[in-house]
Amino acid sequence: MTVLVFLDPAFPDGRVADSGTPAILATDQGVTRGDGIFESLLAVNGTPRKVQAHLDRMARSARSLDLDIPDAGTWLRAISTAAATFASASPQGPDEHGNTNIVIKLIATRGPEGANATTAWVQASAVPPLLAEQREKGLDVLLLDRGYDSTISHRAPWLLLGAKTLSYAVNMAALRHAHSHGADDVIFTSGDGHVLEGPTSSVLLAQLADRGGAPVKRLITPNLDSGILPGTTQGALFAAAKEAGWELGYGPVEPQDLFRADAVWLISSIRLLAPVNTIDGQAVGTADVRSRLTAELSALLAQTH
Amino acid sequence: MTVLVFLDPAFPDGRVADSGTPAILATDQGVTRGDGIFESLLAVNGTPRKVQAHLDRMARSARSLDLDIPDAGTWLRAISTAAATFASASPQGPDEHGNTNIVIKLIATRGPEGANATTAWVQASAVPPLLAEQREKGLDVLLLDRGYDSTISHRAPWLLLGAKTLSYAVNMAALRHAHSHGADDVIFTSGDGHVLEGPTSSVLLAQLADRGGAPVKRLITPNLDSGILPGTTQGALFAAAKEAGWELGYGPVEPQDLFRADAVWLISSIRLLAPVNTIDGQAVGTADVRSRLTAELSALLAQTH
Repeated sequence: MTVLVFLDPAFPDGRVADSGTPAILATDQGVTRGDGIFESLLAVNGTPRKVQAHLDRMARSARSLDLDIPDAGTWLRAISTAAATFASASPQGPDEHGNTNIVIKLIATRGPEGANATTAWVQASAVPPLLAEQREKGLDVLLLDRGYDSTISHRAPWLLLGAKTLSYAVNMAALRHAHSHGADDVIFTSGDGHVLEGPTSSVLLAQLADRGGAPVKRLITPNLDSGILPGTTQGALFAAAKEAGWELGYGPVEPQDLFRADAVWLISSIRLLAPVNTIDGQAVGTADVRSRLTAELSALLAQTH
Repeated sequence: MTVLVFLDPAFPDGRVADSGTPAILATDQGVTRGDGIFESLLAVNGTPRKVQAHLDRMARSARSLDLDIPDAGTWLRAISTAAATFASASPQGPDEHGNTNIVIKLIATRGPEGANATTAWVQASAVPPLLAEQREKGLDVLLLDRGYDSTISHRAPWLLLGAKTLSYAVNMAALRHAHSHGADDVIFTSGDGHVLEGPTSSVLLAQLADRGGAPVKRLITPNLDSGILPGTTQGALFAAAKEAGWELGYGPVEPQDLFRADAVWLISSIRLLAPVNTIDGQAVGTADVRSRLTAELSALLAQTH
């Protein structure tokens, strides 16, 4: 089941709506133009994780699109209403750590043509079981060209490269392309040969080394100024990994860096840390190192908020 | 006012719906992912123009997105219902040629997540008065980088470059960028310096020459394999212009070709042929030639179906 809570000035905590009843005008520019923004986050035991990072990123996306959206307090009250309504209507069993998890999605569109009124709502739903399976078993991934040069983001703000917009048809087409070629997911590369991000995730890689007898562990992600979305989960894991003694690095990352890494992951707010087994059919690292590092980093991630 | 007609197996001629009442589920992937396709066309005196070209292009877009859509007959019946309902509910005055015009939009989305059922509808509405004004007065246009290389379309079908998808956030952001810089519209260029298309239009240019005393008129548009949408109105005008003795040419077109042209236009199904007065603040051609050629080509276009 899905719970909807619309942000509506007449309802300070949000207006709960039936998800099986049409709630959006067919003329809404979210529908007719993909003209809007979104965020997806996990609520654990009723508490939304990294909620400020998601609200901050949504505010940045809104500025990129010159879109007025409700303030953080209004979103937070609607998120609470959605999580509580979902929990009471559809009690979830706990996961392997004894936690109950809910997917929370925040959406804001430009509203109906000419009306100059944002449509905004929060959606609460169950975590798809496939995601735990992908965390457990790992992913086969294809490298696909995203078409953009890694330097274009600042030159061409109208391309909205740092914004999380509703115009995700290309991301969805890339995933369908991967599935139809026997893969699970995609890592986008830039026209100038840099590793960017997944269609719905950030890319991470680990390099293990020995420095004068002392083991060194490095965690690397593509540089954020290459036109990718700053990952909230990548950011949280980086902070936790630094505390735990990992060295951190930002790209540029090239495909050969992925193939030479000790482990590669796709990381996002709902699926969390999913290890990559193969890229373009070629094994990445070894299963035992991948498994050990995934367990170590997943434990660090579980401690973040 | 706006008339909605949903394509619904229970209603062979389409199901008329109130456009002021929500008709789309908030979980529809047209809303949450911009995952769908559309066409816009003009109905003149109740008859949709170039309807087969639009239905053919919509079918190609659907194949690009691996989307099941209703067959042409079902769309045609819904278009008739929408045009007739709009005409009786909101009688339009005739235009300067004595015709009544209606904007018809066809939309199909991937439907709600997991439901595997396309949502499809036809929308009928009035022609915005601004468009006739732009045809009359002409446009100030900015060249903006679309970020893609002109050769990428075939290498990377997941970029959906030849499909008319609902993911139009970038097109809308480019138009907002132009408006905030005092311009009316945009001509996109590729990363490798070719002229592509407008956010909602095709680009045309005219070159006048003298060949051994005989006047030669050439009409040129960017080559269709550069990752642009094949324009139905450009196609119809090209056919009519050829009959009338124009030579036709396909690109590559570079920005300098626009600045050296005798006239440049943006052409699309609703606004039709809109002359470009300036590009990046620089005048294009001369007002008298532009005006004469616009009148000549508009008359040819009016005779197409």
